[in-house]
Amino acid sequence: MKVYRVGILGATGTVGQRFIQLLDGHPQFEITALAASDRSAGKSYAEACAWKLCGDIPPAVRDIMVEPIDPPLDCDIVFSSLPSNVARETEEKFARAGYPVISNSSSYRMDGDIPLLIPEINADHLRLIDFQRQKRGYGDGFIVTNPNCAVASFAPPLAALERRFGIESVIVTTLQAISGAGYPGVPAMDIADNVLPYISGEEPKVETEVQKILGTYRDGQIEKADFTVSAQCFRVHVLDGHTAAVRVKLKKNSTLEEVIQSMVEFPGLELHSSPKHFIEVCDEPSRPQPRLDRDRGAGMTITVGRLFPDNVFDYRFVALSHNTVRGAAGSAILNAELLIERRII
Amino acid sequence: MKVYRVGILGATGTVGQRFIQLLDGHPQFEITALAASDRSAGKSYAEACAWKLCGDIPPAVRDIMVEPIDPPLDCDIVFSSLPSNVARETEEKFARAGYPVISNSSSYRMDGDIPLLIPEINADHLRLIDFQRQKRGYGDGFIVTNPNCAVASFAPPLAALERRFGIESVIVTTLQAISGAGYPGVPAMDIADNVLPYISGEEPKVETEVQKILGTYRDGQIEKADFTVSAQCFRVHVLDGHTAAVRVKLKKNSTLEEVIQSMVEFPGLELHSSPKHFIEVCDEPSRPQPRLDRDRGAGMTITVGRLFPDNVFDYRFVALSHNTVRGAAGSAILNAELLIERRII
Amino acid sequence: MKVYRVGILGATGTVGQRFIQLLDGHPQFEITALAASDRSAGKSYAEACAWKLCGDIPPAVRDIMVEPIDPPLDCDIVFSSLPSNVARETEEKFARAGYPVISNSSSYRMDGDIPLLIPEINADHLRLIDFQRQKRGYGDGFIVTNPNCAVASFAPPLAALERRFGIESVIVTTLQAISGAGYPGVPAMDIADNVLPYISGEEPKVETEVQKILGTYRDGQIEKADFTVSAQCFRVHVLDGHTAAVRVKLKKNSTLEEVIQSMVEFPGLELHSSPKHFIEVCDEPSRPQPRLDRDRGAGMTITVGRLFPDNVFDYRFVALSHNTVRGAAGSAILNAELLIERRII
Amino acid sequence: MKVYRVGILGATGTVGQRFIQLLDGHPQFEITALAASDRSAGKSYAEACAWKLCGDIPPAVRDIMVEPIDPPLDCDIVFSSLPSNVARETEEKFARAGYPVISNSSSYRMDGDIPLLIPEINADHLRLIDFQRQKRGYGDGFIVTNPNCAVASFAPPLAALERRFGIESVIVTTLQAISGAGYPGVPAMDIADNVLPYISGEEPKVETEVQKILGTYRDGQIEKADFTVSAQCFRVHVLDGHTAAVRVKLKKNSTLEEVIQSMVEFPGLELHSSPKHFIEVCDEPSRPQPRLDRDRGAGMTITVGRLFPDNVFDYRFVALSHNTVRGAAGSAILNAELLIERRII
Repeated sequence: MKVYRVGILGATGTVGQRFIQLLDGHPQFEITALAASDRSAGKSYAEACAWKLCGDIPPAVRDIMVEPIDPPLDCDIVFSSLPSNVARETEEKFARAGYPVISNSSSYRMDGDIPLLIPEINADHLRLIDFQRQKRGYGDGFIVTNPNCAVASFAPPLAALERRFGIESVIVTTLQAISGAGYPGVPAMDIADNVLPYISGEEPKVETEVQKILGTYRDGQIEKADFTVSAQCFRVHVLDGHTAAVRVKLKKNSTLEEVIQSMVEFPGLELHSSPKHFIEVCDEPSRPQPRLDRDRGAGMTITVGRLFPDNVFDYRFVALSHNTVRGAAGSAILNAELLIERRII
Repeated sequence: MKVYRVGILGATGTVGQRFIQLLDGHPQFEITALAASDRSAGKSYAEACAWKLCGDIPPAVRDIMVEPIDPPLDCDIVFSSLPSNVARETEEKFARAGYPVISNSSSYRMDGDIPLLIPEINADHLRLIDFQRQKRGYGDGFIVTNPNCAVASFAPPLAALERRFGIESVIVTTLQAISGAGYPGVPAMDIADNVLPYISGEEPKVETEVQKILGTYRDGQIEKADFTVSAQCFRVHVLDGHTAAVRVKLKKNSTLEEVIQSMVEFPGLELHSSPKHFIEVCDEPSRPQPRLDRDRGAGMTITVGRLFPDNVFDYRFVALSHNTVRGAAGSAILNAELLIERRII
Repeated sequence: MKVYRVGILGATGTVGQRFIQLLDGHPQFEITALAASDRSAGKSYAEACAWKLCGDIPPAVRDIMVEPIDPPLDCDIVFSSLPSNVARETEEKFARAGYPVISNSSSYRMDGDIPLLIPEINADHLRLIDFQRQKRGYGDGFIVTNPNCAVASFAPPLAALERRFGIESVIVTTLQAISGAGYPGVPAMDIADNVLPYISGEEPKVETEVQKILGTYRDGQIEKADFTVSAQCFRVHVLDGHTAAVRVKLKKNSTLEEVIQSMVEFPGLELHSSPKHFIEVCDEPSRPQPRLDRDRGAGMTITVGRLFPDNVFDYRFVALSHNTVRGAAGSAILNAELLIERRII
Repeated sequence: MKVYRVGILGATGTVGQRFIQLLDGHPQFEITALAASDRSAGKSYAEACAWKLCGDIPPAVRDIMVEPIDPPLDCDIVFSSLPSNVARETEEKFARAGYPVISNSSSYRMDGDIPLLIPEINADHLRLIDFQRQKRGYGDGFIVTNPNCAVASFAPPLAALERRFGIESVIVTTLQAISGAGYPGVPAMDIADNVLPYISGEEPKVETEVQKILGTYRDGQIEKADFTVSAQCFRVHVLDGHTAAVRVKLKKNSTLEEVIQSMVEFPGLELHSSPKHFIEVCDEPSRPQPRLDRDRGAGMTITVGRLFPDNVFDYRFVALSHNTVRGAAGSAILNAELLIERRII
């Protein structure tokens, strides 16, 4: 198995740390470059990074010198977890310099020629890459993105429903974890004994990204899925794990059994980071719960529960995933594995 | 001003304690009897009660001897915060013995001849009392109830919309506080770093109670409001204050301005416990928040925010109220004040 | 009663907000000036301040224009809650310009000629003011300070013991609230499901301030109390209320009864903000608790519990106070009231 | 490697679940019997147990039928996590029936002939077993215990100091996790935004157990260590991980370097569950923290930090360990591994 040399842009942040943790011991990737803001550049990673995950910084990266976030970096692929305000310009530079840029940032997600991927759902959107290269003159480089962490939690069960029954409307209310805001992120004074009814920019992202992900590739473009989406997004006192309360109106009649079946049987992939079960549907009335279910499938499984007929729409359910694994770093790594399997990298 | 002698059923529980706190210094009521389970009966209230509210037990009730929960009690009115499994039989006994029973329990809420009151919204439902007395042979006694704590948080803005525009459908997702489960209630092991997607019996209560509250009195009966309701109910890590994320489809067209106006101008009452503003609509993007807004109007105001046009339905908003004040004890006390004003007591 | 015109330095911060809340309706003070960093200056207080306390900004201050933190300000007295890095220079400017500066900052606390006050304990330290004015050439102005919020919670019971029995050694371990770090302060990612064993600069402050507070005024100087102090300071997941676990070795023999008596009988004051009980000693085995006891005496009472003989030292106990009231703004206001009573202002 | 058949008493509780999780895949043990209260007996483990740990119930035990807690059970060894009120009688029955009883309960810990073990510290206390069998007439059976979860966190660094310098006095203040109280355990209403200054029975256990653990075996008895211990025990809002703030007075002079060395070089063991480092001493000023350090060494390492000279005693430090692994189930399993290595089982 070929080992690719990997660089991480934004290596000291919350998602950057998760990239490092998840890539430690990965058979296909070796971290050879770490880039972060000027404040960190020039220090060893161990000096530059205020590590916030359980356990220690993996020994293999402790002594890597952090570099400025500019090409060239000594690597074959870059993972980007840059804040969106710097991502647009910087990721472009790397793509133009010939790097596959696998980005967790929101900057390019909605651009017409950039794949917004959940590999199990829309791997065929990779066909955009040729058009992207041509249009933007990137040469060997390109950009692919993964969705917003909240979208990652409920797009999979919706994909199952869309494929089998067609969706007319979706109303989703999210209860999102603190880690989704990065570090320092949410002040404890704001969230202790509290709920925040607002996450800047989140509701529009959630409403539009899911339409693109479930959209159809046609002639170098993605036709967005034609269902309407309403999102209300809350921050709650949970460290990791986004919960989504979903109601969905379908185009075709369906029984509860068929609905469950569509999710359970939705095919997964056989990539290194793929979970054994892409979507698990649980019976217990009080599941899914973030603390108990976020680590299912090493944080890559979507857990669905409380799936019932709804009084207003057709069905309601609760979906949950790990927001910094399936919703961020794990998702980007899965994208890279897919690109290798499809021989695009 | 006449002072009524009050008894509290379930005086040592979470809502019972809140009754005592809110009645301390109330100009119309004096606590003269406290009743609780056999375990407590025969002790002074100070001995029997594990007081969980800030501050001390009001001196006026410390030495009252707790009695068994059976009539007669030395009082003119009883407030009941009995658990639903014992409430049905016990409240009946008190009504039959001639007491006005002002109940926070769920047992009788949906009975056809029992008012389910939010005084600002449906005071005319009090006309059921005559039918109730006749049908049940209660004599002077009767039962009135207040709604489930989650319903109390979003029924008021819905009432404003129903009255002005008519409602077709409501989809509500609640984020409910720990205190709603009483004491000991939710184990810390279950809710720390977690969200619970299930509250036993809650979703059906929320879906049906709001239809009755907004229903129309006709000939000794309440015709339920004809809109459909879908509720998903979550427990989150907040001590007090239930938050509701609401989407609503209206029967008539309306502008955002009219919608805001309908809520802000919805008339309140002038009872002792009425807040200055029944419904407050706030502009700040990150409000309402439980910790900052639950005590608005001494816990009796409904705070609405994030009121916007919706992609799927007509409008979305977030509503919040204090679940053990407006959602329980405060609500029952307001009912008693209404009954006095209307000379039913 | 004369009303003094008051300015607040650092008006938009956590303690500044608490000043405004506590001064609202105060019979001796009227807020006439608010000063904050350049970012806020020139805006109305309502625009400049991200209000984080329950309830709304008091109407009386909403429209006051925030000014830069420089004399002159249109007021008779200034309260300062400046961060320590700017407090030293700025408070000096105000004192030199003739203002009584009543400071919650740590900058001047340990200076030999600056009173570090807990009015109930060491009001005679006010005699330093004459020496201070002379030495520093302040004219009418002067600086007085109140202690660190952690010290405020356990210095009062120690004062009771020192006065009656003499103290040889104190070992104190604090469990401090999130609000003590201001806003944004502690990131939620750091304190959720966690304890922080380190608060920058806190342990030395705790160890030295208590010796000065319990010290003796002699000839224009404070002779520090001669007992030794060891402090370990932790941050825990509590919004307000610092808890201190104390062991103390006394110079004289004493019975548990005498020890309790020394605390309960320690005389309070009759100032406007004085609590009815300066120190309350509670019997219940599981008290004091921050959430239940921090608001005792409107946040100005010290609650002591779990007072027992100790295996290693003489006695152990747990003390608690509200860190932003008794430990900060409330304490400074009490200092101002004392200065007025003593006709120093 | 011989595989022993294991039974678990109290299998459905918090510690019982942790036993099952830690024994899953263990090379020396196979779970063959699960016993729990009458309510659970007769159901499969999956039916009987409200599993509260991350991940699912290990498949190997899902279908084991839960039996009443009485001998005989189909196993070679029993692990007990019974509540102390039933442990005394029940563990005796099993010992008398010939089973090695490896208990996490407090019932027998302080009995003169029962080893109270931390294998790295006092494995020689196993010599009590012969005396125990003789005195109690147990035949092949016997009882060994592991310490209280709070003691487990700070006894190891004290052992290092006692062995090298001798200890005169210890003052310890603990900040204990919620999981230490089992399930349902601490009500969320009690610990949210709060600290509890009291854990029933904990302070005396902490004060006496450490003296026995560091005591000396002599002629069939343990001579307790002769230092005095003072403990104040708090419950804080942390799921797992007990923190201890320690001051210690030594018998011999020592440098900080020697003190650090004594801990770092304290020898560990080479048993299956032994961590690579028994005691880790960390430099970072804000460590150890429960969330970041409790899983060090798979929950079996003791992390020490903030080790400094003290103003009152000689040294102060903070010690942390995982209360349900090193402080409970992991500790008992380590005891079993030690007993096998020493050929006592």
